[in-house]
Amino acid sequence: MTFKNIMIKNDLFLRALKGEQVDRPPVWMMRQAGRYLPEFQVIKKKYDFFTRCQTPELASEITVQPIRRYGMDAAILFSDILVIPQAMNIEVQMKPDFGPYLPKPIRSQKDLDHVIIPDVNDSLGYVMEAIKATKEKLNDEVPLIGFAGSPWTILCYCVQGQGSKNFDKAKELCFTNPVLAHSLLQKITDTTIEYLKAKVGAGVNTVQVFDSWGGMLSPVDYQEFSWQYVQQIIDALKDITPVIAFGKGCWFALDEMSKSGASALGVDWTCSPRNARYLSGGRITLQGNFDPTRLFSPPAVIKKMVHQMINEFGKDRLVVNLGHGILPNIPLENAKAFIDAVKEYKAN
Amino acid sequence: MTFKNIMIKNDLFLRALKGEQVDRPPVWMMRQAGRYLPEFQVIKKKYDFFTRCQTPELASEITVQPIRRYGMDAAILFSDILVIPQAMNIEVQMKPDFGPYLPKPIRSQKDLDHVIIPDVNDSLGYVMEAIKATKEKLNDEVPLIGFAGSPWTILCYCVQGQGSKNFDKAKELCFTNPVLAHSLLQKITDTTIEYLKAKVGAGVNTVQVFDSWGGMLSPVDYQEFSWQYVQQIIDALKDITPVIAFGKGCWFALDEMSKSGASALGVDWTCSPRNARYLSGGRITLQGNFDPTRLFSPPAVIKKMVHQMINEFGKDRLVVNLGHGILPNIPLENAKAFIDAVKEYKAN
Repeated sequence: MTFKNIMIKNDLFLRALKGEQVDRPPVWMMRQAGRYLPEFQVIKKKYDFFTRCQTPELASEITVQPIRRYGMDAAILFSDILVIPQAMNIEVQMKPDFGPYLPKPIRSQKDLDHVIIPDVNDSLGYVMEAIKATKEKLNDEVPLIGFAGSPWTILCYCVQGQGSKNFDKAKELCFTNPVLAHSLLQKITDTTIEYLKAKVGAGVNTVQVFDSWGGMLSPVDYQEFSWQYVQQIIDALKDITPVIAFGKGCWFALDEMSKSGASALGVDWTCSPRNARYLSGGRITLQGNFDPTRLFSPPAVIKKMVHQMINEFGKDRLVVNLGHGILPNIPLENAKAFIDAVKEYKAN
Repeated sequence: MTFKNIMIKNDLFLRALKGEQVDRPPVWMMRQAGRYLPEFQVIKKKYDFFTRCQTPELASEITVQPIRRYGMDAAILFSDILVIPQAMNIEVQMKPDFGPYLPKPIRSQKDLDHVIIPDVNDSLGYVMEAIKATKEKLNDEVPLIGFAGSPWTILCYCVQGQGSKNFDKAKELCFTNPVLAHSLLQKITDTTIEYLKAKVGAGVNTVQVFDSWGGMLSPVDYQEFSWQYVQQIIDALKDITPVIAFGKGCWFALDEMSKSGASALGVDWTCSPRNARYLSGGRITLQGNFDPTRLFSPPAVIKKMVHQMINEFGKDRLVVNLGHGILPNIPLENAKAFIDAVKEYKAN
């Protein structure tokens, strides 16, 4: 498996995805481009959420902000998983202090009939422009990650209409009208595949699929309503770019995920490094898994815990990351301690 | 280990807790006394939340409502885990359409200084009266379960001040001021032990500790901030009554929990029956673990899935339950299908 476009100066991240031996693991943070950074807040005050996503100059600027400040080993494009349903003709609003709000949730065949599989280069062309602008700014210093939500996670929002503790309405639809749920999941999957292919064409060096709500399903329901669609995405992408599959709370599926053709698996902090290695078979690259709230600890504690975590995972076939997105109110020096700890890591 | 007060006509539940062989497993549902029942809604319209908890006639009536309708194999006292902080001098409000709200959360030593370890027979005497009233109504037909939240779960509300997706403020306190957190946890633990002992004295046949938010901690932090306190509770109670320890999302701790002296462990639906048996060592009684949202499925599907679940767990050393509380909008016939499926179960 060889991928184009890997003339990157700092290729530590790409080497870890290939399973090569490294002096120290690479590091980046989920949601690193965003709300905890004061330079992001400046932009946020001037432009609303979708303007930031849809304006290549803004999205690319936000993407490189954390790299300038902390020098992570990879950048991840500033965007949102909900640009997909938006492009599929489902209205998505981003309400301050509330989060995503979809005023016309998908609950019936009639609702689904309005959902389209868009031409991604048309309706999501702004993402491809943002990628190109970001690549110019990054100047091949570090790789750029593109991402999408898993079809299940996107369905959760499309059906529930907003965030939820248990996505009861989304699950109710799946369990009372599985045919409708699968039609929607397949439409999202088809769109996502074209979207990620276009992203690779525009220049991203890796893609990550975020299954943020996969862990709300039982293992059997996870196979039916989430994993089979993630597998379709991996199958369609794995020969053109490395794929990282992240499933929050999906420890129970790590064995199957490890055989999927993904280059790496993201794990959350409830799975110890030892368990994660064991459950994933010990050969695939893992990404994670520092508890995001543990960044509230004093910097010295963070550094010690990061080194313990790397030692427990082993330095190879590892991408150091948080177990979920960084929280908005994390002190800057604590985020710095997390990144620095990895850069300062020396194998025993 | 022998316990008083087990002259119960239907002792299936108590026998399963002892690990005895049974023709079919016993069944009850977390939150079975409450909001999905029309007869509960009648009471709810007339009396506010704490009036219902604090009036023995109302609490006992609500407790036996589901037994009358469905004939579960155990009753669980209608109450709330937040009666404990309330008795500890922390104001707790129950806001409609919002949930618990604690206007003066515990964030400093000064806040903690106001927290008392109460005389439970005084400040929580109404719970003991409710138990006695319930025992009369149950007439020893089925056992009565008493419960408490785990100290960690109670701390989550006391510090956060309300429900939360990630209890970031609660975890921030633990990670920035662990000494304060442990002082609060110990006070809650001491109160909980006295509270559960008093409940046993008043007549409950079993106690369950609900660690609803244990699964938000990493395995290491879980040991430090949750499990050691649950273990104290088990140590203090296990010789006077069977203890059930339920930790939502705590699959990673099942091994240690199985060696705690608890009579049974509750598991949620993200852990397959096979995994739950494996992780808990295969000898302890398990309780669970049907996905509460799966009760949206048609009754025939529910019955089939329940039988599959029992077969996968094995019928012995099993208490059939949901993996978390029943949801408010579950159709009555679906709840009935769940209970009936267990009663109709025949071993292959």
